[in-house]
Amino acid sequence: MDIQLIKIKQNILSDNDSAAEELRKRLTENHVFMINVMSSPGAGKTTTILQAIKYLKDDYRIAVIEGDIDSMVDSEKISEAGVTAIQIQTGGDCHVDAAMLKLAIDDMDLSEFDIIFIENIGNLVCPAEFDTGAHTKMMILSVPEGDDKVLKYPLMFSVCEALVVNKADTISMFDFDLERLKKNLEKLNPEMDVFYVSSKTGEGIAPWVEWLKEKADRVIGV
Amino acid sequence: MDIQLIKIKQNILSDNDSAAEELRKRLTENHVFMINVMSSPGAGKTTTILQAIKYLKDDYRIAVIEGDIDSMVDSEKISEAGVTAIQIQTGGDCHVDAAMLKLAIDDMDLSEFDIIFIENIGNLVCPAEFDTGAHTKMMILSVPEGDDKVLKYPLMFSVCEALVVNKADTISMFDFDLERLKKNLEKLNPEMDVFYVSSKTGEGIAPWVEWLKEKADRVIGV
Repeated sequence: MDIQLIKIKQNILSDNDSAAEELRKRLTENHVFMINVMSSPGAGKTTTILQAIKYLKDDYRIAVIEGDIDSMVDSEKISEAGVTAIQIQTGGDCHVDAAMLKLAIDDMDLSEFDIIFIENIGNLVCPAEFDTGAHTKMMILSVPEGDDKVLKYPLMFSVCEALVVNKADTISMFDFDLERLKKNLEKLNPEMDVFYVSSKTGEGIAPWVEWLKEKADRVIGV
Repeated sequence: MDIQLIKIKQNILSDNDSAAEELRKRLTENHVFMINVMSSPGAGKTTTILQAIKYLKDDYRIAVIEGDIDSMVDSEKISEAGVTAIQIQTGGDCHVDAAMLKLAIDDMDLSEFDIIFIENIGNLVCPAEFDTGAHTKMMILSVPEGDDKVLKYPLMFSVCEALVVNKADTISMFDFDLERLKKNLEKLNPEMDVFYVSSKTGEGIAPWVEWLKEKADRVIGV
C-alpha cells in the first residue's frame, strides 16, 4: 500500500512538473510573467497583492488567479480593484497544481496580460511541493505567526525566491525577531530576498514591488 | 490516473478510519482521553496547550504528542513545563494520521496518563480529513488571521467540536468581528462551542478548560 502510494505520488509530481514546464514556456512565449504567492491562512496574500496592483496597474496589465478550497471572498476584493480575477475552487485540495492553472489560463487571452499573480491556498505545506508553471515563487509570513516558522516549514522557505514579512505595523504586540528569522534563513536559503512590509499601511511595499518588476520585465521583455 | 488516485485516497482514508477507531477504543479502555488540536501555523497551539496544562496538571497526568514536519521547537517548550512531550516528525506530510499516533502511543504506558493532547501540523486543510483516534477535535483560530476563514476552510470548521479564538489581546490592531464569525458558523456548524481567549495573558482560558475537563472526565471516568 505504502509503496503504491509513493509511486502514485511520484507520478503525480512528475506529471505535474511536465505540465508546469509546458505552461511556463507558453507564458514566456507570450511575454506574460506569472508569480506564485504562498502563505499561511490569513497572512495577507490578498492585501499584499492589492498593494502591488496599486503600484503596477498603470504600466502593466494584471490578472489574479485565486486558489481557494471554497468561497469567492478574495476574487471579489480583487475585482473591486478593477483587475481581472479568475477563481479556482479546488474543492478540498490543499494546493493548486499546473493542471488547474492550465484550465484557468486556457480561458484567458494571453495577449491581454503582462503579469499574472497566483494566490495559492493558504497552507505552508502542500503548495510548496507543486510547480504551478509560474516563473517565480514567493511567500508571505506575517509577524503574528512567529519567527520560528522557518524551522517548522523548511520546504516552503527553501523553494521561494522572496519572503515578504507582513503586518509589520503590529510588531509591538508580538514576540517576533526579524534578525532571528534571517539567521535561520541563512542556513536554509541564503539567496532569499526578504522584505519587511505592512500591507495595511503600505509601509515597505515599494522595494518589494521593484523586485517584482525586475523579475517581470525579464519575461515581458519591456 | 485520476480514478486510480481517488481509489488510493479512499483506501487510505478508510484504512486510517479503522486504525483510528481501534486506537480510540484502546484509549477509552485505558481511561485516557485524547484531544486533537488543529490550527494554521502560528495560531498559538503550543501556548494554548501550555495554558491548559497550568490549570490541569495538579489533577490530571498529561502528555502532549507534537506533530511537526521538522524541528523539535514545540516539544522543547512542553518539556520545560514539566509535561511528557512526544515528537512525531512527519518528514513532509501535511497532517498526522492514526498510524503515526499508534506508533507514538505504543511506546507509552497508558496507565501513566489521563489526557493526551495532539498538537497537529499547522494547516487548516489536510488535518481536517484524517481521524487520529482522538475522542474530540478542536481548532484554534487567531484574531490576526481574520474572521473570513470559516468560508475558506469549511471542512475544518465542520469537523471540530470547539473553536478557540486566540490572541484576543491584539483585537484592536485587526479588523476582526467575532459576531460575523459566529454568524458564518451558525450555517456550517451551529453546535460548535466558541471560546474567546488570549493564551498570552490567560484571559478567557478558564471556560475553555472547563469544557475540556467535562469532555475528558467522561472518558477518564472520574
